[in-house]
Amino acid sequence: MPRPIAWVSTVSPDGLRNLAPFSFFTVICPEPMTICFSPSRRRDGSKKDTLRNIEETGEFVVNIVSESLAEQMNLTAADLPPEGDEFTFGRLKAAPSDVVKPERVAGAKVAYECRLDQVVHVGGAKDGAGALVIGTVLRVYVAEEVWTGSRIDTDQLAPIGRCSADEYTTVRERFAMIRPGNPGGPSVPDFRT
Amino acid sequence: MPRPIAWVSTVSPDGLRNLAPFSFFTVICPEPMTICFSPSRRRDGSKKDTLRNIEETGEFVVNIVSESLAEQMNLTAADLPPEGDEFTFGRLKAAPSDVVKPERVAGAKVAYECRLDQVVHVGGAKDGAGALVIGTVLRVYVAEEVWTGSRIDTDQLAPIGRCSADEYTTVRERFAMIRPGNPGGPSVPDFRT
Repeated sequence: MPRPIAWVSTVSPDGLRNLAPFSFFTVICPEPMTICFSPSRRRDGSKKDTLRNIEETGEFVVNIVSESLAEQMNLTAADLPPEGDEFTFGRLKAAPSDVVKPERVAGAKVAYECRLDQVVHVGGAKDGAGALVIGTVLRVYVAEEVWTGSRIDTDQLAPIGRCSADEYTTVRERFAMIRPGNPGGPSVPDFRT
Repeated sequence: MPRPIAWVSTVSPDGLRNLAPFSFFTVICPEPMTICFSPSRRRDGSKKDTLRNIEETGEFVVNIVSESLAEQMNLTAADLPPEGDEFTFGRLKAAPSDVVKPERVAGAKVAYECRLDQVVHVGGAKDGAGALVIGTVLRVYVAEEVWTGSRIDTDQLAPIGRCSADEYTTVRERFAMIRPGNPGGPSVPDFRT
């Protein structure tokens, strides 16, 4: 299935930058604006730098991946040691965030500055056990070129999604369906009668 | 961004069926296989039938939406009262599940039978506050026609994703990128030297 990608930038307590993509990412609610993603563990069961940095600093930025950034995003999926800087390895410029320490990807057209709300642990200490990082969105960066004045333009943003194996999808082939009960949509039976 | 759709079937304690799509849906971890979705509240702040049924019965089924089921899925987005059966309104056949009471959508090519692990509440009782339903997957139904013998065939499944406003995306236009360090992928610098 097509899955949105959270391209997460963090900083360790001693200032080492990290950037990595995660495709288990979704929204929880609009008020307070809250999102979550799953930073899966390494095959050896150890925590990835992203989760460790978030637990230690309480801050992260979720950058959105447009088609034009796909190849560089893929480079940042490399399992570098903590001292390896994925911004450098991915040939990416960083831009300062407004209210959190981790920088955003300068070329990303949308980015969410987040403060950790909580980490939900699932499955105990078993191999394959998971953690879900829940974050409150403090600021949303939207590049002018993708902003219509009232919403983000999907064609201008041209986001990609993760599919199975090594595959990604574009969202160029879209279709519209209007919800039942909305103007132009299917009518809804009246059960009160 | 393209978002996977959890098409969730539940049953109320007195046996009323419910079926509704939610596009804030992702995976937490493989062991125990755990997924989550956000059943947003109605505009008046009340809980939707899906969340109420899951809290009361602890069971749900996540059905996957193929292109061929898109229109019927959209019908089940209608905000029917509890006594309105979305299977009937959506002209959908149900099939019995293996280990949970809610039935699956018979035409769905993949379905996950789930037991509630926990509901994480975010944002207190404010308007727009959210709940995240975390479920342990007990059984996975995969139709033979989409199973290659080792994985689910994306072209055969032809899943759709939710985009913004009234738009949905197909995943017909895909491309592959190999992770750094994997055979055929970009090489990773050795930081140990």
